Amino acid sequence: MTSVTGSTAAIWVQSFAAGNANQRTLLGGKGANLAEMMRIGLPVPPGFTITTLACNAYAQAGRQLPAGLWAQVLANLDVLQAQMGKRLGDPADPLLVSVRSGAAVSMPGMMDTVLNLGLNRRSVEGLALQTANDRFAWDCLRRFVQMFSNVVLGISGHGFELMLAAARSKAQVETDAELDVAALRRLVDNYEAYVLQQSGVPFPQDPLAQLQAAVQAVFDSWGNPRAQIYRQLYAIADDLGTAVNIQAMVFGNMGNDSATGVAFTRDPNTGEPVFQGEYLLNAQGEDVVAGVRTPQNIQLLKLQMPRIYSELCETSLKLELHYLDMQDIEFTIERGKLFMLQCRSGKRTPAAALVVAVDMANEGKISREQALLRVSCDDLQNGMHSRFRDANPPLVFTRGRPASPGAATGMVVFTSEKAVQMRKDGHDVILLRPETTPNDLEGMHAAVGFVTRTGGTTCHAAIVARGMGKPCIVGCDALEIDLDGRSATSGGVKISEGDLISFDGGEGIVVLGRAEISAAQPSPQRFELLKWADDVRQLRVRANADTPIDAATARSLGAEGIGLCRTEHMFGQGGHHPERLAVVQRMILAETTHERSVELANLKPMQRDDFIGIFQAMADLPVTIRLLDPPLHEFLPTDTDIDALQVTDPTAAQRIRIKKAALHEINPMLGFRGVRLGIVYPEIYRMQVEAIFEAAGQVAAQGLVVKPEIMIPLAADFAELALMRDMVVAVAAEQRVAVPYLLGTMIEVPRAALVAEELASVAEFFSFGTNDLTQTTWGFSRDDAEVGFLSHYLKNRVLADNPFVTLDRRGVGALIQMAVDDGRRARPAIKLGICGEHGGEPNSIRFCAEIGLHYVSCSPLRVPVARLAAAQAALLIKGQAANASSV
Amino acid sequence: MTSVTGSTAAIWVQSFAAGNANQRTLLGGKGANLAEMMRIGLPVPPGFTITTLACNAYAQAGRQLPAGLWAQVLANLDVLQAQMGKRLGDPADPLLVSVRSGAAVSMPGMMDTVLNLGLNRRSVEGLALQTANDRFAWDCLRRFVQMFSNVVLGISGHGFELMLAAARSKAQVETDAELDVAALRRLVDNYEAYVLQQSGVPFPQDPLAQLQAAVQAVFDSWGNPRAQIYRQLYAIADDLGTAVNIQAMVFGNMGNDSATGVAFTRDPNTGEPVFQGEYLLNAQGEDVVAGVRTPQNIQLLKLQMPRIYSELCETSLKLELHYLDMQDIEFTIERGKLFMLQCRSGKRTPAAALVVAVDMANEGKISREQALLRVSCDDLQNGMHSRFRDANPPLVFTRGRPASPGAATGMVVFTSEKAVQMRKDGHDVILLRPETTPNDLEGMHAAVGFVTRTGGTTCHAAIVARGMGKPCIVGCDALEIDLDGRSATSGGVKISEGDLISFDGGEGIVVLGRAEISAAQPSPQRFELLKWADDVRQLRVRANADTPIDAATARSLGAEGIGLCRTEHMFGQGGHHPERLAVVQRMILAETTHERSVELANLKPMQRDDFIGIFQAMADLPVTIRLLDPPLHEFLPTDTDIDALQVTDPTAAQRIRIKKAALHEINPMLGFRGVRLGIVYPEIYRMQVEAIFEAAGQVAAQGLVVKPEIMIPLAADFAELALMRDMVVAVAAEQRVAVPYLLGTMIEVPRAALVAEELASVAEFFSFGTNDLTQTTWGFSRDDAEVGFLSHYLKNRVLADNPFVTLDRRGVGALIQMAVDDGRRARPAIKLGICGEHGGEPNSIRFCAEIGLHYVSCSPLRVPVARLAAAQAALLIKGQAANASSV
Repeated sequence: MTSVTGSTAAIWVQSFAAGNANQRTLLGGKGANLAEMMRIGLPVPPGFTITTLACNAYAQAGRQLPAGLWAQVLANLDVLQAQMGKRLGDPADPLLVSVRSGAAVSMPGMMDTVLNLGLNRRSVEGLALQTANDRFAWDCLRRFVQMFSNVVLGISGHGFELMLAAARSKAQVETDAELDVAALRRLVDNYEAYVLQQSGVPFPQDPLAQLQAAVQAVFDSWGNPRAQIYRQLYAIADDLGTAVNIQAMVFGNMGNDSATGVAFTRDPNTGEPVFQGEYLLNAQGEDVVAGVRTPQNIQLLKLQMPRIYSELCETSLKLELHYLDMQDIEFTIERGKLFMLQCRSGKRTPAAALVVAVDMANEGKISREQALLRVSCDDLQNGMHSRFRDANPPLVFTRGRPASPGAATGMVVFTSEKAVQMRKDGHDVILLRPETTPNDLEGMHAAVGFVTRTGGTTCHAAIVARGMGKPCIVGCDALEIDLDGRSATSGGVKISEGDLISFDGGEGIVVLGRAEISAAQPSPQRFELLKWADDVRQLRVRANADTPIDAATARSLGAEGIGLCRTEHMFGQGGHHPERLAVVQRMILAETTHERSVELANLKPMQRDDFIGIFQAMADLPVTIRLLDPPLHEFLPTDTDIDALQVTDPTAAQRIRIKKAALHEINPMLGFRGVRLGIVYPEIYRMQVEAIFEAAGQVAAQGLVVKPEIMIPLAADFAELALMRDMVVAVAAEQRVAVPYLLGTMIEVPRAALVAEELASVAEFFSFGTNDLTQTTWGFSRDDAEVGFLSHYLKNRVLADNPFVTLDRRGVGALIQMAVDDGRRARPAIKLGICGEHGGEPNSIRFCAEIGLHYVSCSPLRVPVARLAAAQAALLIKGQAANASSV
Repeated sequence: MTSVTGSTAAIWVQSFAAGNANQRTLLGGKGANLAEMMRIGLPVPPGFTITTLACNAYAQAGRQLPAGLWAQVLANLDVLQAQMGKRLGDPADPLLVSVRSGAAVSMPGMMDTVLNLGLNRRSVEGLALQTANDRFAWDCLRRFVQMFSNVVLGISGHGFELMLAAARSKAQVETDAELDVAALRRLVDNYEAYVLQQSGVPFPQDPLAQLQAAVQAVFDSWGNPRAQIYRQLYAIADDLGTAVNIQAMVFGNMGNDSATGVAFTRDPNTGEPVFQGEYLLNAQGEDVVAGVRTPQNIQLLKLQMPRIYSELCETSLKLELHYLDMQDIEFTIERGKLFMLQCRSGKRTPAAALVVAVDMANEGKISREQALLRVSCDDLQNGMHSRFRDANPPLVFTRGRPASPGAATGMVVFTSEKAVQMRKDGHDVILLRPETTPNDLEGMHAAVGFVTRTGGTTCHAAIVARGMGKPCIVGCDALEIDLDGRSATSGGVKISEGDLISFDGGEGIVVLGRAEISAAQPSPQRFELLKWADDVRQLRVRANADTPIDAATARSLGAEGIGLCRTEHMFGQGGHHPERLAVVQRMILAETTHERSVELANLKPMQRDDFIGIFQAMADLPVTIRLLDPPLHEFLPTDTDIDALQVTDPTAAQRIRIKKAALHEINPMLGFRGVRLGIVYPEIYRMQVEAIFEAAGQVAAQGLVVKPEIMIPLAADFAELALMRDMVVAVAAEQRVAVPYLLGTMIEVPRAALVAEELASVAEFFSFGTNDLTQTTWGFSRDDAEVGFLSHYLKNRVLADNPFVTLDRRGVGALIQMAVDDGRRARPAIKLGICGEHGGEPNSIRFCAEIGLHYVSCSPLRVPVARLAAAQAALLIKGQAANASSV
């Protein structure tokens, strides 16, 4: 009978008293924290944990409890019964237990909780006696049978609800609480008959049989489909397993000296260091959750139970000091005695996360480095934007993918023209489009935010939105837009032009009418945290900015220069400068080099004035100016505009049509742009370089320090760069300006990375244009992929990450690493940075730090995030180095 | 006077008698061959060569003759005068010399020749006396003054031509030959006066002054713009320099015992071992070239001068044995004595090149390996195609880029529909289009050849043409096509639908009417050479073939398997199977997976039958089948077809329009194609794999050996390939067919090369799809680049080679090398091949051989070229290895 095999020697069960917080993997989060609280002397109802090892052994053995497990459960139960002076199923004074699952990682989809286990038709009488409350005891039994049958026996709750409704109807009452003992007794009878009918076996009356079934149900729930899918989605190992916690019940509903509640050690909404929570007198935990009665503010407990309140505050402080983090706690007061039922790291808003971390560092509880690592970049970013006050707002019209955070209210419009017009009339407008293109930029400028039916998080609308700092939702699949009818429908609801809607770009929710919106409130802690980040990081952070205003904004947010100044916006792209666009169009339509030169001469003073403003805004800091990049056809009028022109000037219209057709490309992404323009039309780049040097000379003459960096886009071969270098050197010599400058290139096609050593013999800096480099390395068109196969790939986990969001280390990263190594070989002092969208994404920033780039460049509003991410990267690299050296 | 400096010690001048053929760099090609002929005892008029070193020293010193040069010239001249018994400028019996340039590389743009140098007003009398021909002597002087003034003094020839015309007019004669001595004397007077007027100095009478000026003119011509551009174009070093050959004149016009001629040691047109040439009695070389008199066939010389003819034949044999190659010789017979004036490797037609090389190997003059290296792949390819008999045909309509060799005559049509219709009526048609697209394929099948206004040598029309083995010209810039008017204009000439035209795709010439065309005549030598190639090469050669007929053709041309069988043509793309296209379109328009499955089930038997035919044609040999690659929208009807459908079935038309819009992509090259289709619509790939296994099973059951290789296109990540592997393995298991097969992938985006090690854990072979890999590595859209900036790049030598023609070793090659190394690391036995257009291009094939690929795959008609190229690569690699080991 005592034969010992390998597996029976295993420890499958451990008392709370024997554990601690470090045993999270073995005991699950809930079990480990219960043990820890007991270990530091907090009042925890005794109990024990069946370990995750047992769960795995059970699964491996084909749903057989491992040998020895049950004996260990019984032994621990004996200890518990002795400790409590009660026995499970005792008809006079029964021990009741709760059975709760608890994995190392919090995971929805698993069986959660069975309360009051140990009740049956005999022990219910003992409970009634002990609580002096027949109705309470029978209601407990009624609930237990219902909960156990549903959760453990797998019988749908619907039948029980019908019987309950019938009982209310018969008793002519409206709520369950009004059912009397007799009714509850009959209900238990009916429930048990129903269980027999559904399962073929009677409801288990033996408390040990109940316990074993509950334990197996928890184990089984680890493998149920919902839990499996969740694990797949969040890459949680299947062999982690769940623990089962069996704990003596305490009752907060034993009278007015009893209560139950939840609390936070600090305000989870604001992060303020104020003890916060709510409770119900004479109630069980279920009642707080069910919302039948309105819980009271915890401050009231101070008046009602001053001793307990004080004990709770002390416990709260103790827990926070112990865990060094804000805690979320559950407690029950039974007949004037406080019991702790759970503690865990408290969920908090992004803004609160930042405040808590900085405050705790300032309180000396954690280091500044810990504070920096504890605030996620998402928290920092989301903490900056306005949002719906209500996370589950009413009147939801449709949903989509959150593409740019922030909340907005405005009148819906369906065309850019209308957006501009209504904005002129003083209205806030929200632009709702099937998708956006560069032709919509004017309308996007006019709108307070954009919603699109198609697109992923890096589609045109999303990128422009984040660049402009405006909220945006994309990929609202359920939306149908009728552009002709100027209306949109979703889920049967129709909105028309001018209707008021609101949306939260951080949540991806569009609602009808005006929603309540919480404004962004940057806290002093935010500034403090970013200052600490600056002290720690190695990577410099620059901004992608094309105008003096953007440059100033970026600088105010901590940018240390401009990493990408796109000159196409100065050419009138995107409706920035319609008067310039006309000149640019004439330049493109020029039939001779001379004609083109005339128009370029008209453009030059405009370019120069732009550069003057930017150099002034970025005095003392480097400014990387990319020469013209987009294909020329992007500057020509739209077909609609040409049709309009047809009426007034058919010759001009025809001329533009012919030029458009000549410039048309099947794959514009791989087309006639970047340095290819500079080589075929050298006069365009020459004009730009002249404007740069003229501007630099003028600003330098004002006594400001100017640091221009001229960037040649899309080079794939040494010869391209060498030709451009010769041109720049020649212009610099002609200008006779003594402003030091750098000449470099963007690495944005794979070949550039492959021939980086040759390129570096000319280029004084490399800036990795990871948007295009990702497109060409993968052969993914960003404009198409995210709405096409890539969304399928991501949904079905063919790819773990969207390479346009998180830099693909294995492929694109390998090319970057190669270019960095080869570039440094040719020119050890070469300056290295990144200016794609990834420059503002934390994982990608970490990669940049790891391979030793000098800077990242991102949109102005992402600069703070990049500063934090760079600091975190530096800390993690330092940590790795420390670990490596200590091994 | 005899002070010796570093440079005066140099040898600037060398007598013909002191040189040999190996001194080509020092003496230039002409000088080295003259020296060599003299060395082996052939009768060469004596003379000497001013070396290329002197030319370089002259250029470096700022156009100053290097110290010592002139003294050496005079010393050599003294020797020459002594040898000839005549003196330069002697009024009684003058020595006359020719001065001719001659670089190591034959190079147009340089000064060529001055004849009769040494003549002046006094020595002309001596010449008259010696030749007993006043008129001849004065005509010589007239010509010398004109040639010298033009070539050496740089005076435009126009003035001289005017004076000559005036003289003819005054003498009332029609040709220069009819001018009498008096007229010629007056002309010399007028010429000299004109020279004085134009140059400000008298025409030099001093023969030494003439000589020095001529030498300097040759030196200067090395640096003239035309020569510089030529050197840039052909990557010839600027410091190569030209030599100057000064040689005693001999005269073929001293009576009927004198003659001059040119000859080839074998027939340069056919390669037959027949002595060939032509000559003129009593004439100078100029007369042969000028075409005033018709030269006689060299066979006649046998009758007129049997001894000389016999000596010429012996000389011919001797030269060929000495140079071990067919020679082109120039000779002059002066008063019954033969003089050799030049010999060089003879230019020959592609067909002749092959015949000569194989014959010479069979004659034991060269080795088979030498024969293999001597026939260029272009020769082999061009020797296979028909061509215009006349290289400069009359009635040229327009010109363009040679895109696919071969000549054709047919009626011009401007639409594919018309091509099909007229072909049905029994006419040969030539399709003339602005450009071609997959929609034109039916018409291209119907036509005998295609001509397009736009496009480069790898545009759609060119690729399809070479694949079909039809002639093609692209990029006819001067052409204007009026599709509505069904006519085309070039240089003011208009042709209309149905007009007869001819074109030569190897030359890029289109003519009006029917041109004389030489048919392709594969010689027995061709088969012999290719057999030798097969003995030598390491690389296997496969073909890209999609049908049983193509497969059989490829096999007959020596293909050792199929490296790329594209299944899209079996899906009806390109008008191959209109009945299937209808099924495919229904499949694409299917709204549910079930609907799609029904149509796929209809397609499967068709696919299976295709595979059966291909497996039979390629029994015993591997067949690589690529699963569906192109984006689905390519299979949908054209807008024109949809508009037509609108009339009969507006609902269907609208449905197709919506689907087309949904499938539209901004950059289809980077779009929803290849394995991306296989992952989003697994049922499509599954059907194809089932068809492959079913076909393989049936053919194997016939007792034939089947070797299917299933190729997954466009994989960029391990997960994609692993999913497809799972599917293929599952289908193979279901089919229970014991046919061994391989599963592999195309490497056609950079990321695939970067993660090759992971891919190779699944893939049993890699096939490099270098067309797409080049597009993505460079960021060049092939469809756009060649007509856009890339043609500018190539024209202006920004890039030396078109990377779509010659594999870019530095960039694309580096990725391939990486994939080969990493792939072999994961799977040492991995099979490696290439199936892009580069698979048939010799330089690229050499790269494939160097990095140890197992095979190349190319279009069936390129298979012979690939066999030769592979042999040449093997020989060159062997040669390099031998050189390396001997160092």
